[in-house]
Amino acid sequence: MPRPARLSDADAGERLKSLPGWTIAGGKLHRVFQFRDFTEAFGFMARVALLAEKLDHHPDWQNVYNRVTIDLVTHDAGGLTVLDFELAAKASAAAGS
Amino acid sequence: MPRPARLSDADAGERLKSLPGWTIAGGKLHRVFQFRDFTEAFGFMARVALLAEKLDHHPDWQNVYNRVTIDLVTHDAGGLTVLDFELAAKASAAAGS
Amino acid sequence: MPRPARLSDADAGERLKSLPGWTIAGGKLHRVFQFRDFTEAFGFMARVALLAEKLDHHPDWQNVYNRVTIDLVTHDAGGLTVLDFELAAKASAAAGS
Amino acid sequence: MPRPARLSDADAGERLKSLPGWTIAGGKLHRVFQFRDFTEAFGFMARVALLAEKLDHHPDWQNVYNRVTIDLVTHDAGGLTVLDFELAAKASAAAGS
Repeated sequence: MPRPARLSDADAGERLKSLPGWTIAGGKLHRVFQFRDFTEAFGFMARVALLAEKLDHHPDWQNVYNRVTIDLVTHDAGGLTVLDFELAAKASAAAGS
Repeated sequence: MPRPARLSDADAGERLKSLPGWTIAGGKLHRVFQFRDFTEAFGFMARVALLAEKLDHHPDWQNVYNRVTIDLVTHDAGGLTVLDFELAAKASAAAGS
Repeated sequence: MPRPARLSDADAGERLKSLPGWTIAGGKLHRVFQFRDFTEAFGFMARVALLAEKLDHHPDWQNVYNRVTIDLVTHDAGGLTVLDFELAAKASAAAGS
Repeated sequence: MPRPARLSDADAGERLKSLPGWTIAGGKLHRVFQFRDFTEAFGFMARVALLAEKLDHHPDWQNVYNRVTIDLVTHDAGGLTVLDFELAAKASAAAGS
């Protein structure tokens, strides 16, 4: 499928308003998710992995015990696109927040 | 660690009362979990897999799309043991129900 | 995307030849995968889950410790389709066999 | 279980010799694993997650598409312990390398 175009900063800022907990840092959509323990964190990661693979758009993410940090950007587009906002929204939904 | 002993039917029946949704079928602790979609079902499975590996006690389970069916029994003990009830309670907690 | 059409028995039989280890049982593509332990079995399941979600075609599968049994059929088409053979081939590749 | 003691630098250096691909960087056991694609990378992660949960010793790790970077240290011990080397060896085995 065709990759979406880079969003303007204004557009990205507007979309950010409907994503509580996310910020834009270093040009990426960024959020830290905190869970009760490792099993809950990894269950979340498994779900996000499936959502990402289906979108064919993968996160830059890291995990330490109960914490999962996600950074999203569309490298091909040189910035943020609708794909990043879509995966961010799905990740938030998967975390129930 | 030493494996626990088989519970009496009376004991198992008593413990079952604190596990809503679970039944004893064919000598096994049995429950069907239903989720919104495959990603939620598999996120649950990833979490249960971690809990099971930590207990060194693994489920007999199957999945079709958004449904996960779990059967628990302790083969070494020839029946139900506290391990089965422990994993069942953890699975219920992981499913939020 | 449009769902593929049911394959004729002759066509399915022909395709089966390039899938070592798989059989057609009860109208489904069927295979039992055996691994060293639960962690290897579940690592395989995680990978197949991703492949399935991407194809939007999910297996009927079960797991007991180091064994994963997969059954594939396209319910919408009332039988086997190219999707089943595609997921079967990907699962075999993921298992390295 | 009691947590192991911090290894001396000499001991850690000695153990490192039997872990091809791993280095000690910033006081942590460090390795980058590369896979064919995201599904293979995440299948590996699922397996390592299970191994980590069983050891009750969790990695600091990150993933971008087909690459998984793992850093291991035992925070309680203020440095590297046998637990880090054990998880590193298991991760290498899971990656087949």
